[in-house]
Amino acid sequence: MKRSYISEVKTGERNKIQGFIENIRNKSKMAFLVVKDITGKMQIVVEKEKYSPEILEKIDALTIQSVITVEGEVVANDYVKLNGMEMIPDILEIDSVAEALPIQVDSKADNESDINLKMDYRWVDLRTDENTLIFKIQSYMVKIMRDFLTDKDFLEIHSPKLIGSASESGSSVFEVDYYDRKAYLAQSPQFYKQMAMAAGFDKVFEVGPVFRAEKSYTSRHATEYTSFDLEMSYIDSFHDVMTFEEELLIDMLEKISAKYGEEIKEKFGLEVIIPKTPFPVITVKDLYSELETRYGYIVPEGEKGDLTREAEELSYKLSQDKYNSEFLFVTDFDSEKRAFYHMRENGVPQGYDLLWRGVEITSGAQREHRYDELKKVTEEMGLGEDVKFYLEFFKYGCPAHGGFAIGVDRLTMLLLGLHIKDAMFIFRGPNRLNP
Amino acid sequence: MKRSYISEVKTGERNKIQGFIENIRNKSKMAFLVVKDITGKMQIVVEKEKYSPEILEKIDALTIQSVITVEGEVVANDYVKLNGMEMIPDILEIDSVAEALPIQVDSKADNESDINLKMDYRWVDLRTDENTLIFKIQSYMVKIMRDFLTDKDFLEIHSPKLIGSASESGSSVFEVDYYDRKAYLAQSPQFYKQMAMAAGFDKVFEVGPVFRAEKSYTSRHATEYTSFDLEMSYIDSFHDVMTFEEELLIDMLEKISAKYGEEIKEKFGLEVIIPKTPFPVITVKDLYSELETRYGYIVPEGEKGDLTREAEELSYKLSQDKYNSEFLFVTDFDSEKRAFYHMRENGVPQGYDLLWRGVEITSGAQREHRYDELKKVTEEMGLGEDVKFYLEFFKYGCPAHGGFAIGVDRLTMLLLGLHIKDAMFIFRGPNRLNP
Repeated sequence: MKRSYISEVKTGERNKIQGFIENIRNKSKMAFLVVKDITGKMQIVVEKEKYSPEILEKIDALTIQSVITVEGEVVANDYVKLNGMEMIPDILEIDSVAEALPIQVDSKADNESDINLKMDYRWVDLRTDENTLIFKIQSYMVKIMRDFLTDKDFLEIHSPKLIGSASESGSSVFEVDYYDRKAYLAQSPQFYKQMAMAAGFDKVFEVGPVFRAEKSYTSRHATEYTSFDLEMSYIDSFHDVMTFEEELLIDMLEKISAKYGEEIKEKFGLEVIIPKTPFPVITVKDLYSELETRYGYIVPEGEKGDLTREAEELSYKLSQDKYNSEFLFVTDFDSEKRAFYHMRENGVPQGYDLLWRGVEITSGAQREHRYDELKKVTEEMGLGEDVKFYLEFFKYGCPAHGGFAIGVDRLTMLLLGLHIKDAMFIFRGPNRLNP
Repeated sequence: MKRSYISEVKTGERNKIQGFIENIRNKSKMAFLVVKDITGKMQIVVEKEKYSPEILEKIDALTIQSVITVEGEVVANDYVKLNGMEMIPDILEIDSVAEALPIQVDSKADNESDINLKMDYRWVDLRTDENTLIFKIQSYMVKIMRDFLTDKDFLEIHSPKLIGSASESGSSVFEVDYYDRKAYLAQSPQFYKQMAMAAGFDKVFEVGPVFRAEKSYTSRHATEYTSFDLEMSYIDSFHDVMTFEEELLIDMLEKISAKYGEEIKEKFGLEVIIPKTPFPVITVKDLYSELETRYGYIVPEGEKGDLTREAEELSYKLSQDKYNSEFLFVTDFDSEKRAFYHMRENGVPQGYDLLWRGVEITSGAQREHRYDELKKVTEEMGLGEDVKFYLEFFKYGCPAHGGFAIGVDRLTMLLLGLHIKDAMFIFRGPNRLNP
C-alpha cells in the first residue's frame, strides 16, 4: 500500500508508515517502538502473544535509528502522548539496521571535542527534532524570499564560481588548478550580478555558494556559505535598496512567524518579531558617539570608520534601547573601508550595513556605474589588472543600480539563536572539509 | 515620478520610462529613438522646433545602447509598429553613454572568432531580444520545477562544493589549494543529497553549480554548469524515480508552453510539445538492436553497454518513429559503465538515462543504501579511501532512496534549439574563464 506521512495518519484506518526508530522498549510481553519521519512520530505497539515468531525475531533484531516500514491499524489511545494514537502493526519490515551509534542523537555538545564528533557524524546529528526543524525553516525562508523576488519579475541568474582573476581582494581567494593556468573561486556573485545590469536584465537574484579563504575561527564565519544576492537597476539612491530590503525581510519574518513561530518559541526559546518600518538608520560617526555616551564604549582611533565587533554587539543594545528595534541600518562608512565598487558622493560611500540582533547580515549599496569614476577609483586604489575585465561592463551603457547580499546561514543562525556551524547543512572551515 | 515598465505604459498618460537605446534616427527636423527595457520597446519622437537647445544637445550626444530616462506623454499612433504608440518626451536624461560597440547587438555569429568576440562582450551580446528571452525562460523554468518540489514538501539543501576527497572519479576533478592541503570541487551534490536521506530529510533538492575538469570541446559540455538535483526516500524501485521525473517535466513543459510557447515559436522556430505518459522505455540492448534493424547502425563491440553519441542522436529518430515521443528512457546499462552508487539487482544497474531530442538530459537511479553491498562494490572497483567517508552514511540506518539530476543549461539548450554556450549566462570551458 501507499506510504502515509505520520502527520497524515488517521485513527480507525489501515496505514503504512516508514521512518527511523527513535525509541525501543522491548519487554517480555510487549514491545513499544517510536518511529519518526520528517512529519512526526508514531508509537508502535506489539502485544507479543499475538504475533508470529518471524515478526518477533525482527523486533529483537531492531536497533535505535534503524529504518523500518510498518503497516497496521492506527487506534486512538488517550494515554499515548504522541498525538493520542498508536499503531498495531501486522507487517513490519527492516529496511536498514543501524550499527551502534557513534554519537547520541539528541545529546548536547558541551565541549569542542563533542562538537567535532557531532560534525564528523553530521547526518546522525541532523536527525534531532531541533536540527530537522532548522532546515525545514531555512528551506522555507529561502523559498519565501525567492518568491518575493520572482513575484516582482526578478530574473534568477547562475553566475560562474570559477573566475579568471582574484578580483575583489587577492588575499582571501581560493586558487584552483585550471588546466595549464590558475582560476579562483568567486567570493561573491557581485561582478556578475552587475554584469546582468549592464546586460539589461533589470533586476536579478542568485542563491548560491560563495568562498572565503579567510582564517576565521569565530562563531559567525565559514569558508563556504550560501549567499542570497540581488541587484536592481534604475534606482535613485541606496535608500531605494534599503527600503526594498526592509520589505523583503518583513515579508519573510511574517511568513516564518505564521508557519513556524510557535515551534521556534518552543524549540529555540525565541520570538519571531516582525519589525516596524522604516528601520532606524544611523551614521557610523553618530553610532560611536551614542555608544560612548550611553555605554562608555570608546572606539580605537584607527577603527572609527568601520564597525568593530564590540560596536556591532553594543549596537543591538542601542537599537533596542533607543529605537525599540532589532534591526539597525548603519551608513556613512569611511571610503577606504568600503569596496571600490560602491558609489561615492563627496567621498562618502553610498551604502550601508544592516545589523540584526547585533550581527551584520547585509552590506548593500548603490554601485558606481559611471565608467570614468570607476576607472579613477580603481587607479587610486591600485587595483589595476584584476578589475580590468569588470570595468569593461560599464563602457557600453549601464543603468544606475544597486543591491545587497544576505548570508542564508547567518540569517538562520540569528533567527534561531544558533552557532553558524549548526545553521549550515554541512559546515566548512579552515580545519573542516568533511564529511 | 515613478518609473513604468514599457509593457505597462498606457496612451493618454504621462509616463516615465528607462532603458537602452536600440535605435536612433536623428534628422534635421525630427529625431526618433527606440528605447528598450526588459518588458518591451517604445518609440520616442522629438519634433525639434518644439524643444530647447539643452534637450537637442543631449539627443545629438546619444549613441546606440546608451541608457536614458525619458518622461512624457504617450500617444496612440497607428503607424508606429511598436505597440501602436509613441512618447513625446518633455524630460530626457542620459544615464550612461555607450562608447562605440565592440560587437553589433543582434548580429549573427558566423565563425569561431565571431563567437569568441561575442563571448568576450557577453553583457552586450545578452541585450538581443533572443538572449533576453532565453534567460527569462530559464529563470521561469527553474522556478516551476522548484515550485513543483516545494509543493510536495521537498526540502532545499545547500551542500558544500569544497570537498575533502576526489571522490566520484579522480581524473576529472578540479584541485583547490585549501590552506596547507588540497580540496576538490564537487562534481555533483550526489553524496550530499544522499547524506540528507541518511539524515532523515526524506526528500531534498538542490540547484547549484557543479564542476567537471574534462577537456570537452563539444557543443554540449561546460566545465561548470547548473545542476538541478533531487533525491527521495522510501522508493520501491527506480521506476518510482522515472515516474516522478515524467511528472516534473510535463508540469514544466505545460507551464512554459502556456507562458512562452508563442514567443518560442516566433523567435526560435520550435514547438513546445507536451509529452504523453508513460515515456517509452527501452533497454540498451534492445535499443542497439532497433538501431541496427531500422537504420543500419552497428555499435562498436566495446561500447555495447553504454550509449554512443551516434546512438543518442539516432535514438531521437527512433523515439519519434516508433513511439511518437521526443523523450526516451534507456535502462539496463552495463554494470561497469554506471556509477558505483547505483543499486544493482542481479548485476543490472537499477537506473536509467533520459534522452530528449537525442541528448541525455538525466541520469537517474535507485541508490545502493545497504552498507554491506556498497562496501563489496567499492572494494571490487578498488575505490577505497576516496569513498570511505561516503560509505559511513549508510552504517547507522538509511532509507531506500533514489533520485536524478537535470542540467539546467542543457534543458534550456534543448528547449530552444541552442548551443550550450548560448544557454548559459556565462560559459566556462577549458579555454574560457572570462568575463
